Amino acid sequence: MIAAEYKEMLGKKSVIRELAEYGARRAKEIGYNHVFDYSLGNPSVPVPQAFTDKLVELATGSNPVAVHGYSPSLGIDSVREKIAASLKTRFGLNYEKKHVFMTSGAAGAIAHALRAVTQEGDEVITFAPYFPEYKPYVNKTGAVLKIVPPDTDAFQINFTEFEKLFSPKVMAVLINTPNNPSGIVYSTETVKKLAAFLVEKEREYGHDIYLISDEPYREIVFKNVDAPFIARFYHNTITCYSFSKSLSLPGERIGYVAVNPACKDAALIVEMCGQISRGIGHNCPPSIIQLAVAEVADRTADLSVYETNMNILYEALTGLGFSVVKPGGTFYMFPKALEEDAIRFCNRALKYDLILVPADSFGCPGYFRIAYCIPTEKVKRSLEAFRQLAEDYRS
Amino acid sequence: MIAAEYKEMLGKKSVIRELAEYGARRAKEIGYNHVFDYSLGNPSVPVPQAFTDKLVELATGSNPVAVHGYSPSLGIDSVREKIAASLKTRFGLNYEKKHVFMTSGAAGAIAHALRAVTQEGDEVITFAPYFPEYKPYVNKTGAVLKIVPPDTDAFQINFTEFEKLFSPKVMAVLINTPNNPSGIVYSTETVKKLAAFLVEKEREYGHDIYLISDEPYREIVFKNVDAPFIARFYHNTITCYSFSKSLSLPGERIGYVAVNPACKDAALIVEMCGQISRGIGHNCPPSIIQLAVAEVADRTADLSVYETNMNILYEALTGLGFSVVKPGGTFYMFPKALEEDAIRFCNRALKYDLILVPADSFGCPGYFRIAYCIPTEKVKRSLEAFRQLAEDYRS
Repeated sequence: MIAAEYKEMLGKKSVIRELAEYGARRAKEIGYNHVFDYSLGNPSVPVPQAFTDKLVELATGSNPVAVHGYSPSLGIDSVREKIAASLKTRFGLNYEKKHVFMTSGAAGAIAHALRAVTQEGDEVITFAPYFPEYKPYVNKTGAVLKIVPPDTDAFQINFTEFEKLFSPKVMAVLINTPNNPSGIVYSTETVKKLAAFLVEKEREYGHDIYLISDEPYREIVFKNVDAPFIARFYHNTITCYSFSKSLSLPGERIGYVAVNPACKDAALIVEMCGQISRGIGHNCPPSIIQLAVAEVADRTADLSVYETNMNILYEALTGLGFSVVKPGGTFYMFPKALEEDAIRFCNRALKYDLILVPADSFGCPGYFRIAYCIPTEKVKRSLEAFRQLAEDYRS
Repeated sequence: MIAAEYKEMLGKKSVIRELAEYGARRAKEIGYNHVFDYSLGNPSVPVPQAFTDKLVELATGSNPVAVHGYSPSLGIDSVREKIAASLKTRFGLNYEKKHVFMTSGAAGAIAHALRAVTQEGDEVITFAPYFPEYKPYVNKTGAVLKIVPPDTDAFQINFTEFEKLFSPKVMAVLINTPNNPSGIVYSTETVKKLAAFLVEKEREYGHDIYLISDEPYREIVFKNVDAPFIARFYHNTITCYSFSKSLSLPGERIGYVAVNPACKDAALIVEMCGQISRGIGHNCPPSIIQLAVAEVADRTADLSVYETNMNILYEALTGLGFSVVKPGGTFYMFPKALEEDAIRFCNRALKYDLILVPADSFGCPGYFRIAYCIPTEKVKRSLEAFRQLAEDYRS
């Protein structure tokens, strides 16, 4: 019979999807150029040419049977080696092939990491504001997701509330820095404090506690922002990476799990990921995408437009009286809405063809998200709409 | 803490993988050409040129941001439409976009289909010999896999044993025709009998029973073999397809779920698959692979070599006294071993550098699998090794 659980999920509409659909409809009415759609985190800059060149070289090469053949279940050896070497060079930790498991983007990485280190009834803690998909990711492992309320002053970690939520049942802490939706990067001070806290709790409870670090925005960090590499600070770190944003290929579903070499079970966790794949039916990411991405593991698309857009929006919005913590990276900004109910606020913004996402589903009511991965000229044209919206609240 | 369940799975070695690793080591000793590695089902013919051309066109086109952008969670609309149209034209059922969900190969398709129509404690029935990965696929849904013993006369369905295993707890029946490992295609008679049985049981128990049809070998059917399209015979059929074998791109992980339009919940099941993806962390197959495959949905690689190889092997093996049911498709053959213990038999075959897979893990002890997706000249050279092996048992 039809599985009731998934049928029920269908009943719950996604606010972001509804807004994006509204945007598409509205674009048909008044033209795409006149809709300021800030709803979706889809990169707006092209993939590096080196990726395309490699993809074409692989596709047209002399051995298509090998190129399109099965990947080993942990990922193609040469790809895992290149990624480990890149991480080692960039961050100074001794990553080797055995610490790397190739995945279908960060979603796949988190799905595997969670299953490797939690069991039925365990708890996983994350911090608001958080990516709403964390809920289904965790729920389906049998573990339970607990949410620490936001530190709305700086969008770092609310340690007081974190401590209150902590218990011996917590086997993993899930963080995302640079953060979707706040755009904030955890400072070295925050990360050190978090690591010290976890070390202390490991000692107190006598079991490992894993830090699952969701890092799809790692390469989008703005000038002079302190962006510590998480694994450097905590031994039991499982880094979940995606090339979606750094290389502008979110649709190609490619990323990895990298377990800190300092974690005593690092290689075991990677091997276990291969077993986890069997049960969820996706064995490994596509061979040709793995091979092409490995060639550009150290590069990024030209990500500078995001900082340009951020600066324009930040200046304009603060000038209009919005309360915003300045983003340190990503392509998101997270201002306070001009009324308590951010859903009402975002609905009112639609009058000016501004599509903004209320942050209720991110665990932070009263705020909204701007995904400014759109052309700069459009960002500039949108400022008048923001001005009119703010004006609306003054009159 | 480390999840005990997956750690334990690591302890259980895969016979197929061990044999393949042995083959690789042996190839280093005596040269690849001298090892007759019949262990792996990796296609040996190239992908159609039209696929490569489309892939290059997409990669080098004017809009990389769109090509590499997020796919909708059910798959790209145009891709789903093309696949539905192809199925409709070829098989005469009224497939539309809403009946098709894009997946990461057949593994992804089965993982979704099982979750859509079973819940904790339900039962799923399959027939020996069966693909060993069915066990982890089903186990991780919370349902239980029951195995019907083989019909070793013809490798059709053992209906007597099937009836004995059936109960109101059975929510899905999982079949694979053309079959891995037997190479046998279910006849129209078998499929009709199966459908009639399920219709009868649906009536008796008052609930839907789904037929999950795993069809990665659908396009590899030999001359004059009757190969019925399963969904035509049973309303609640969920077809799980992979392009791995038909297009020779197993590493690219691309396939689909197609729910029979005659199933009353067809569109609902497809929508639910999108929700299921959220919990297991793979949202959809890579965009560029989806787009390229849609262009060649009606084509196949040149699959004729498999029938050529089959005929050579069938004639030689039966001539040597092996008991074999002649395959109707795939690139597998499934003879009876020359001693009761097929594991011992396959170990003895290694003496002649013949790598064969004992069928114990397929639920059919005493038999072995030959995966003859290797060059014909190598098949011919291997006949002498088979002759020596058979001779060994006579002396």
